[in-house]
Amino acid sequence: MLQELFSPSVQHWLDLAGIFVFAISGALLAVRKNFDVFGMAVLAEITALGGGTFRDLVIGAIPPAAFTDLGYFLTPLAATALVFFLHPQVERIQSAVNVFDAAGLGLFCVAGTTKAYDYGLGLTMSMVMGLATAVGGGVLRDIVANEVPSLVRWDRDLYAVPAVVGAGIVALCIHYEALTGVTTGLAILTAFVLRLLAMRYHWRAPRAWHRRSAAVEAATEETP
Amino acid sequence: MLQELFSPSVQHWLDLAGIFVFAISGALLAVRKNFDVFGMAVLAEITALGGGTFRDLVIGAIPPAAFTDLGYFLTPLAATALVFFLHPQVERIQSAVNVFDAAGLGLFCVAGTTKAYDYGLGLTMSMVMGLATAVGGGVLRDIVANEVPSLVRWDRDLYAVPAVVGAGIVALCIHYEALTGVTTGLAILTAFVLRLLAMRYHWRAPRAWHRRSAAVEAATEETP
Amino acid sequence: MLQELFSPSVQHWLDLAGIFVFAISGALLAVRKNFDVFGMAVLAEITALGGGTFRDLVIGAIPPAAFTDLGYFLTPLAATALVFFLHPQVERIQSAVNVFDAAGLGLFCVAGTTKAYDYGLGLTMSMVMGLATAVGGGVLRDIVANEVPSLVRWDRDLYAVPAVVGAGIVALCIHYEALTGVTTGLAILTAFVLRLLAMRYHWRAPRAWHRRSAAVEAATEETP
Repeated sequence: MLQELFSPSVQHWLDLAGIFVFAISGALLAVRKNFDVFGMAVLAEITALGGGTFRDLVIGAIPPAAFTDLGYFLTPLAATALVFFLHPQVERIQSAVNVFDAAGLGLFCVAGTTKAYDYGLGLTMSMVMGLATAVGGGVLRDIVANEVPSLVRWDRDLYAVPAVVGAGIVALCIHYEALTGVTTGLAILTAFVLRLLAMRYHWRAPRAWHRRSAAVEAATEETP
Repeated sequence: MLQELFSPSVQHWLDLAGIFVFAISGALLAVRKNFDVFGMAVLAEITALGGGTFRDLVIGAIPPAAFTDLGYFLTPLAATALVFFLHPQVERIQSAVNVFDAAGLGLFCVAGTTKAYDYGLGLTMSMVMGLATAVGGGVLRDIVANEVPSLVRWDRDLYAVPAVVGAGIVALCIHYEALTGVTTGLAILTAFVLRLLAMRYHWRAPRAWHRRSAAVEAATEETP
Repeated sequence: MLQELFSPSVQHWLDLAGIFVFAISGALLAVRKNFDVFGMAVLAEITALGGGTFRDLVIGAIPPAAFTDLGYFLTPLAATALVFFLHPQVERIQSAVNVFDAAGLGLFCVAGTTKAYDYGLGLTMSMVMGLATAVGGGVLRDIVANEVPSLVRWDRDLYAVPAVVGAGIVALCIHYEALTGVTTGLAILTAFVLRLLAMRYHWRAPRAWHRRSAAVEAATEETP
């Protein structure tokens, strides 16, 4: 039912767009880490499809959507080809890429929440699944690239909070039976705008109170 | 059947206690790695629920318990809040935390073994699942934090062996149809005490015979 | 149907042989990273069974084969024992180990493709699953060992391409209804020989065009 809010083809094209921009971020990191073209494709696929695949395994949507729809698999390969041939140009429009990534974040947190709810999870857990759909691929990307996930780093602008807010709006709308195409679009837009603002004003989350010493902190900050 | 050995509510409270102490260890590592409060929550959730979620995916308990019981999800957030505000105090009682962690280890290896057996796995594989339940979260915690899992490091006190013994006692009891509340408690207690002894006397597992050179070893030991 | 191409017992022994050589590579890396004997066993199990377990979770073969067949679980332990006692000798025959690893690669990409197709995936996705079966364990091995996966490193000989070719031959044979014991054997052999040639002549995949500067590259190459 919930999946009918957008017409299926619009939903599908939005999904592919989100997958494409997530894949770009994976392929760019692969170039920075000096991986070969195959490593770029692997990282692009994992970044774009990892979050949704984790969600589908958890909610029992077997096989996961990434393995049933050929478009989901081929889109990251197209992103890989683009970055392979035009890497400096893509780097140069990094800020545009970030805007699209924010759009992907909004899209995925909302789509993940509704899909999890359709599969019978509770509202809170559907929110968590929406968050996992949106940020899971990026965490897997960083793990495979052997980096500390940028999601958990204190010196990165807020990324998860916009997704939580977007997923939360959807959950509230479901609870009050107010989920329509309009409210769904509003949830996506809210997450999108929040992420843009977080990047613009460098909003960050606090760290634990009374951490032991400035020395420890300085040492940790030096690590890449 | 097996799950009835403890009354459901006792079992549930024990589960939550184990989840809480595992989450504390995740949140503490996040503070040491200088993650922000959101990274603390992510690491706490993964540490506390990762092992059980892996087990549930493998045995086909879909959706995993971590995504159906709200208490399982909220407990690590409570642990995160505690560490966020009282981090130095929690660090100071690290040895008490370690004792609780040992209790969690005993609890989880036994609960994991019985649940896997209930879902139709063989006795040996149920033991393996009990072990995975107990140690899986810690391995995922270290992977996300970009560290070598402390489970596999030679310079850490035995952690897996107590869990294997606890799971093995449960498997033997099932085989001889002797699994009662008493024997279950005994299995938990054995794993708990073995882990305490391993920490007290720094029991460690051997490394491969005839490793190539002391130079290689020294170089590796220096890495954090 | 497809699984009947080889007699079940031949297929089973080939599987165990592939698992054994993959486990050897995991145990050897564990020794180089200075893990204890338990860490060796963990890394051997993950390397040998990780790819197939991921495939089985995705295609819905629950519980995964690794958790139903005791031989699959015990074989990596035998490999661990061998490396534990005879590590210098096994290192000395590293090139022989590499040949067996290439055979395992051929075997696993073909077996993974046919199993995924049997479970209803499309031909392209069955190929992807064949690739994941063959290379997934190695990627998980490197992640647990806290290394950049050798699969994605530009300075490693081609590993995935032979697996893709082998899986592709199987997919083509299924499409043209030409999958027999002979063509299956040919697919395995092709992947095997391609991997041997890649090692012999150091075939490598290209990196992105116009990477930014030689300085970046040099810096990255220095990291282990």
